[in-house]
Amino acid sequence: MEKGTLIKEGKAKRLYHTDEDGYVWVEYMDQATALNGKRKDHIVGKGVLNNQIDTMLFKMLMDNGIHTDFVKQLSDNEQLNLTVDIIPLEVVVRNAASGSFQRKFAVPYLQKFDHPVVEYFYKSDELDDPAINTSQALALGVIKPGESERLQELALQINDLLKARFAKAGLELVDFKVEFGKKADGEIILADEISPDSCRLVDLETRDSFDKDVFRKKTGDLVTTYQEVLNRLNDSQEEA
Amino acid sequence: MEKGTLIKEGKAKRLYHTDEDGYVWVEYMDQATALNGKRKDHIVGKGVLNNQIDTMLFKMLMDNGIHTDFVKQLSDNEQLNLTVDIIPLEVVVRNAASGSFQRKFAVPYLQKFDHPVVEYFYKSDELDDPAINTSQALALGVIKPGESERLQELALQINDLLKARFAKAGLELVDFKVEFGKKADGEIILADEISPDSCRLVDLETRDSFDKDVFRKKTGDLVTTYQEVLNRLNDSQEEA
Ligand SMILES: Nc1ncnc2c1ncn2[C@@H]1O[C@H](COP(=O)(O)OP(=O)(O)O)[C@@H](O)[C@H]1O
Ligand SMILES: Nc1ncnc2c1ncn2[C@@H]1O[C@H](COP(=O)(O)OP(=O)(O)O)[C@@H](O)[C@H]1O
Ligand SMILES: [Mg+2]
Ligand SMILES: [Mg+2]
Repeated sequence: MEKGTLIKEGKAKRLYHTDEDGYVWVEYMDQATALNGKRKDHIVGKGVLNNQIDTMLFKMLMDNGIHTDFVKQLSDNEQLNLTVDIIPLEVVVRNAASGSFQRKFAVPYLQKFDHPVVEYFYKSDELDDPAINTSQALALGVIKPGESERLQELALQINDLLKARFAKAGLELVDFKVEFGKKADGEIILADEISPDSCRLVDLETRDSFDKDVFRKKTGDLVTTYQEVLNRLNDSQEEA
Repeated sequence: MEKGTLIKEGKAKRLYHTDEDGYVWVEYMDQATALNGKRKDHIVGKGVLNNQIDTMLFKMLMDNGIHTDFVKQLSDNEQLNLTVDIIPLEVVVRNAASGSFQRKFAVPYLQKFDHPVVEYFYKSDELDDPAINTSQALALGVIKPGESERLQELALQINDLLKARFAKAGLELVDFKVEFGKKADGEIILADEISPDSCRLVDLETRDSFDKDVFRKKTGDLVTTYQEVLNRLNDSQEEA
């Protein structure tokens, strides 16, 4: 397969055409952003780390029956994905309070929930990614009837699998963000990425952050932190 | 029944004990607020108008099978209600875009929705009444499993009835806010009030506002406007 022209550049990845229909060539960039892109840093090594972490996690999810856009790794910082129509919702699952939930509802940091919380944010740079509920998303034509139920079901299945996988690596999954897309046949599958950019992870013992919060809050080195996540995932990988 | 001591004073009503258990004496005040109470005006005549409009609308809903906290009118500006445990959610139903929805999602004023939008706001002065979704409300213990479905079902039934009633009075129901409460036996019933304070109404022909927006936006006289709503409701009342 050949890399074609650039389709679009996001905050973390570049997407390219390929010479075969239905596939997208994804390049993980050495870039970190915060405050919805207002802060932007070049960070050597980040793309390679996220590509590897994402690949490992998507493979694990696929081994457990989750359909995704992942096809194969192409290089250290590139992978081949199925082209999908991205549903413009950031689907957030929370096992404990942090970030915007903590700020909005004034609950203590890392307070556990009895049941995971699922939230949607409408992916719109002009609107600044506002929180949106099922009924609003239906009214705006972002989703169709029945799709919200499916998104929540998938998000909770993914949460269970990720939580267990990170626990084996000594990390607690506080929350994460995923995106879903529609294949040509209409099936809703997991798309985009799962990495320390899109997860909140804390050490099960020390409660130290092992995710993008070290960059957002300037409390640690991003590459060292993501490398540690990758090492822990590798070390806790079961033999086939 | 005798009026007892003050239980609490809200932004629009005062609630008093009565000499019989299970009842609350409600006084509609001559006060209008905006910006979550930051702007507060004394408006002679408002309490009497809202008490009458609310009484007429709650009676209409009860005639159509909706269970409410309304017991009877006590005076021009007072009524007797069942005491309930208020569920601290403002349940908003929208038939067209206005207010916070319009601001948040940048859609044109009064753009119609194919299906009504239902939103929840968490009644909390300290948190400034944030938008909250079902999953968040469950996690915070604001509602129990199954209650959100019931609230939405009731809210949509009430919407259908109010929409039809206002249409007979030449008014389009753009959106409204209701509160629900639990009776001692656990039943969820409609509580609080329905008035031009809590509805957005526009003239079916001219599209002029007939609600609190004339006060919020300082585009008209509140008492004249509310009086017109009452007159129109009275004029379109069917003979029993
Ligand atoms: N399989 C896919 N097919 C099409 N688009 C995708 C796919 N996976 C991810 N995308 C989209 O690629 C874009 C670039 O990703 P990213 O840099 O993470 O963007 P963002 O700035 O939105 O976080 C995003 O809009 C994302 O939704
Ligand atoms: N039947 C009822 N039983 C108990 N509380 C009620 C009942 N109806 C309304 N309330 C509560 O009475 C309070 C006063 O009403 P209001 O002045 O409208 O308050 P607010 O400032 O919250 O709008 C509100 O907290 C409302 O939820
Ligand atoms: Mg992204
Ligand atoms: Mg009120």
